[in-house]
Formats: sequence, C-alpha cells, structure tokens
Amino acid sequence: MPHNGRVPQNAVTPARRVAVLGAGSWGTTFSKILADGGADVAIWARRSELAREITQSHRNSDYLPGINLPRNLWATSRLPEALDGAEQVYLSVPSQSLRENLRIVRDLIPQSAIVVSLMKGVEKGTGARMSEVIRQELGFGPERVAVASGPNLALEIAKEQPTAAVISSEEIETATTVAMTATNPYFRSFVNTDVIGTEFGGVLKNLVAVAIGIVDGVGYGENTKASIITRGLAEMTDFAVAYGAKAETLAGLAGLGDLIATCESSLSRNNTAGRLLGQGYSYSEVIAQMNQTAEGLSSVAPVLELALAKGVQMPIVSQVAEVLAGTLAPRDIAPHLTTDELPQGE
Amino acid sequence: MPHNGRVPQNAVTPARRVAVLGAGSWGTTFSKILADGGADVAIWARRSELAREITQSHRNSDYLPGINLPRNLWATSRLPEALDGAEQVYLSVPSQSLRENLRIVRDLIPQSAIVVSLMKGVEKGTGARMSEVIRQELGFGPERVAVASGPNLALEIAKEQPTAAVISSEEIETATTVAMTATNPYFRSFVNTDVIGTEFGGVLKNLVAVAIGIVDGVGYGENTKASIITRGLAEMTDFAVAYGAKAETLAGLAGLGDLIATCESSLSRNNTAGRLLGQGYSYSEVIAQMNQTAEGLSSVAPVLELALAKGVQMPIVSQVAEVLAGTLAPRDIAPHLTTDELPQGE
Repeated sequence: MPHNGRVPQNAVTPARRVAVLGAGSWGTTFSKILADGGADVAIWARRSELAREITQSHRNSDYLPGINLPRNLWATSRLPEALDGAEQVYLSVPSQSLRENLRIVRDLIPQSAIVVSLMKGVEKGTGARMSEVIRQELGFGPERVAVASGPNLALEIAKEQPTAAVISSEEIETATTVAMTATNPYFRSFVNTDVIGTEFGGVLKNLVAVAIGIVDGVGYGENTKASIITRGLAEMTDFAVAYGAKAETLAGLAGLGDLIATCESSLSRNNTAGRLLGQGYSYSEVIAQMNQTAEGLSSVAPVLELALAKGVQMPIVSQVAEVLAGTLAPRDIAPHLTTDELPQGE
Repeated sequence: MPHNGRVPQNAVTPARRVAVLGAGSWGTTFSKILADGGADVAIWARRSELAREITQSHRNSDYLPGINLPRNLWATSRLPEALDGAEQVYLSVPSQSLRENLRIVRDLIPQSAIVVSLMKGVEKGTGARMSEVIRQELGFGPERVAVASGPNLALEIAKEQPTAAVISSEEIETATTVAMTATNPYFRSFVNTDVIGTEFGGVLKNLVAVAIGIVDGVGYGENTKASIITRGLAEMTDFAVAYGAKAETLAGLAGLGDLIATCESSLSRNNTAGRLLGQGYSYSEVIAQMNQTAEGLSSVAPVLELALAKGVQMPIVSQVAEVLAGTLAPRDIAPHLTTDELPQGE
C-alpha cells in the first residue's frame, strides 16, 4: 500500500537554475538540497548582511549554525537578481505574509517558471491554502504550481541525514520535474497529484503537535501520546477528505510521516508552545515567552472554522482551542479517554 | 473516523473474580488494572517467593519496582487456587510456552469462564496467533476467547498514567464484558470484533520497532524514523488484511497506536536489540548481551513465512531479517530511500 510514486527516470529533466525566496532555516536547508542535487541556486534574503554571509562564508549562522553550504549556492537581498533566469521558484516566507510577497515578485518571475511552496499554513481570514494564494495572486494554472512536504526536520536534513519527501502538483509532469530537481544522495522526493491532502497534512500536523506538547508539559507518557497521534491522524484525515483530499495521502509521508516527525521533535515551536501550556502558562504568557509565534497556534482558529463549515468533528483540535482559551485544564486534554463521542460496538 | 467502539453502558456486568496467569511486568500491571476496576484478582506466579511478595508486601520488586499493588489482588504459585471460581482468565506467559501451559491448566479453568490473551506473538513452527492456540488447546468457541492490545507500556500504566486499550473478541458481548472488567479511572478499554487485526497489530509492531532500534543505533534521526513507521504501518496493514483483518484496526489504537508507543519507548527489548544491531553487533552477540530474547527478533522468520504464503511484500521486515543474517549493513536499512519497489506515478 505505498502511497507515493517514485520519480520516473528520464521522464523530464531537472532544473539547472532555481531561486529560493526566504533564508530562514527551512529555506536555506532546501536551497542546500537543491544545490546538492546539482542546481545553481540563488537565495533571496531580506537582510543584506545575511545574503553576504551566505555568499561569502557559505554559512547561515543564525539559522543553521555549524552547517557548511555548498559552493553552487549564493544569496542576494535584491529580488530581481535572485529571480533572473530561474526555472523554478521556491517560496519559504512566513505564511501570513505570502500574499503581500507575491504581489511584490509577481512581475519578476520568469515566463513558464514553476512556483513551489515550501510553507505549511493556511491564510487567516480566507482559510486559503498556500498553493491557492499562489494561484490567486500569480494567476497561474495548476501546471505551474507545486508544494513540498513530508517528515522533514530542517536541521537533520542540513546534516545530510537520509530523508524522503513528497512533491505534489495537480499536473504529474510538474511534480516530477520538481522532484527530480529536489533529489540528491541524502534526499529523495516522491510525487503525487493530491495537492489538497499534501498541504492540509502539513497544516494539521502542527495542531496535533501542540496537543502532544501539552500532554508532555502535563507529564503524561508515551501511551497517551501514541493515542493522541492515532486519534489525531483520524481527525486530520476526516478534515482533509471533507475538502477533497485522498485518505491515502494522509496515511503517507506527507500526513502520518510528517505528523510523527513533528510530534517527536522536542525542538519544534509547536511542541514548545504546547509544553508551556501544559505546564500551566496562559496563551498570552506563552506568546510573550516565545520570540515568534508557533504556526500551530495561529492555525487553530481558521482550521476549526473550516471544519465547522464541512461539519467535521475535531475533538483534539477543539480541546487545544479550549486550553488556549483557558476553559479546559491541560491535564484533561486526552480526548481518547474523556470524550463520549466515540461510537459503540463496531 | 474512530476505529474502536466504546463500551456500552449497562449492557453486561463486569466480572467479580478473575485470574491472571503470569506475574511478569505486564501480567502484574494488568492485574492491577483489573483490581483497580473493582475485581477480586488472583495472580498465578511460577515462583512461590514472588507469589508471597505480591500477597504479603503488595509489591513485585523484580518487575515493577516502586509500585504499590492494590489490596484486592493476591498471588499463589498453585494453579488450582488461582483459577478457582474465576469468571475470566487472563494469560500473560511467554508466547512460545503458551501451548504447554494451556495443556496444564485445561482442566482447571471453570465452566463458562472467558479466556483473555495479553500476549503478542505468533507460535514458531505453526505460525498460529495466540487466540488460535487457545482455541485449539481448550476447544473453546469464539465467544469464550478475547485478546487485549493497544499502546500499553506497562510501567506507565502501573504509574496510573491515563491509557486507552482495545479488547477484541469475535463475539461483541464477550469483548464488552471483558472491557468493562478492564476499565478503571486511568485505563479505558474500547472494543472491536477484529481479532485477527488486533493480534497481528501487536505482533508486527515489534518488527518495525526492531527496525527503528537499528536506525537509532546507526544514528539516523526523526525524519528517517518517521518514514520507517509510516511505511511500516502500510506493510503491517497489507499483511494483516491478507489474513482477513480490517484495515481500520491497523489504523487504530491496536495498530498505529501500539506501533508508535513501542517505537518511542527506548526501554523496550525490541528497540534495545535493534540498537545493538545498528551499532554493529551481530545477532548472536545481541542474544548473548540480552538476558532474554526480544519478541520482535523471534517473530521475524515466522512472519516472513506467513507473508510469503500470501504473496505480501514486506521490505522493512525483510531488511531486518537481512541485518540479522549479516547480509545487509544496518546503515542501509532505510527502505523508503533504497528500494526500487515503489510504484511510479501516484
């Protein structure tokens, strides 16, 4: 029951010149993946000091300390330079600023370039997925848009740990040409055409990771966490399928795989935020204590709105929302134990 | 998409007098679960010193150090005493000694008592599941046999961490009466009628846990482990479905839930055995270094035989077998990265 197809050999050719917008830990790591796969990579960094460090020292010491970046990778703070001649443009900017960033780069993206989202989030207010925002703002057809997802903790990949990922596009040739570009000896990309399932998997796993952080903070063990991951995947699948995804995408690397990696990474911001909540800090105290917000926290409200619109029950996400609102004690966030909503018999 | 039914209220009554055969960590922990649910519990311990310690000191210091056992639980080394008047008999003996133990207790089990397997394994040679061995040796119909499974690390439950489990019997009333007996404030039992899926979930997860131990030993991180768990669940599901299980059982607490809890428990024998293999020790060195064999290691050969009989591909389990045989280097055990067997396209 494998859920993702391997990249067909020799079907299409990988891109030679690509641009990555965003020089945070994931944008920089993905740039290294692409460069180590043979592409000539230009990174756009907002800050010129950071662009200089990447180009001259082959380092990004703020986000990837100790990692040497490849020689065929350089950075600039000037968007036209970064985008000039790019066959593929990878986006790794904060999800809530995607739309405004797209308006700035719209006229700089080369004719026929493919745009690839490396982001995991939904836009507040509209509830739009990242690929939807891209298509709306750039006016692209589905054959020019792809998304990347999977169990992809950036620092492990930057250290060249063997990793698998999923590249999804409604057009299989698009997914394939991106996957061939994003493949190297330590990073292997599989393809699918279920963009909805691939993107929602990446959004929803952050919410379950917050729940896992909360029970970690309370002091519960592996039994409880395994139950929450199991029930959480069922909840994620119900939600995504209601929006047109295929259940098998959620059972694959972009769903379950990403969920497990995120829940087991004690370094993730979602996990940290949850742990602080579980230890008894309020939502506002957690926000104050963390330098940047966790994607999982800001997705709770839009996801519950989308669930409500389709009549999907999400007991775990709902309980996270109640903990955030201060109306549920963290130690009671064990839906597999406390809800009466499960059906009887079989 | 919940996969396990909650116990119907007031449908049947829980047992008042039960017996548990086996005083290891799981047998003793399950005895505590039953006693804390209100039953009068007799444990059979092979060694009379251990029986005395449990009865007199309310301790099992070898297997559950630091845990106080409830007052309504006592132990004996005499089988007729333990089984006298038991309405339910729970079995927690080594899986390879089950058949001979059943031959000894056959005539001592009270008329109409239900027998519940707490074991996770298949019999070498026959490939029989534990419930099959029970039915063969006792001549019971399906309505007198149940199995318990789920994300159930014994020490966490002994510490009264909130935990959910699955009780399965072909007869839903049997599952329900057992589940009501095995429910207390910190332990909640759900029911299903898919005995095959419930039992195979418990067997197969040990094999994936060995693979996780191996990559741990090699030094790979969460990305690789999440991929192996994801692909491992697909492999477990293919196998179990080929033998008549329902796929949703494997996606639930007795499949995915148990798999995650086992893979995340660094204390488990399967994980430890895998880690030693990953660090470069040979199979015979691992056996010598561990006091008792890991269930996962002894299940590899029978499971691969059963898979072969149904034509099911199990790349992860096969690669574990190759590592055990010394024909595959542990660092190459990443089937999601190394096999060519994944289908193309979607």
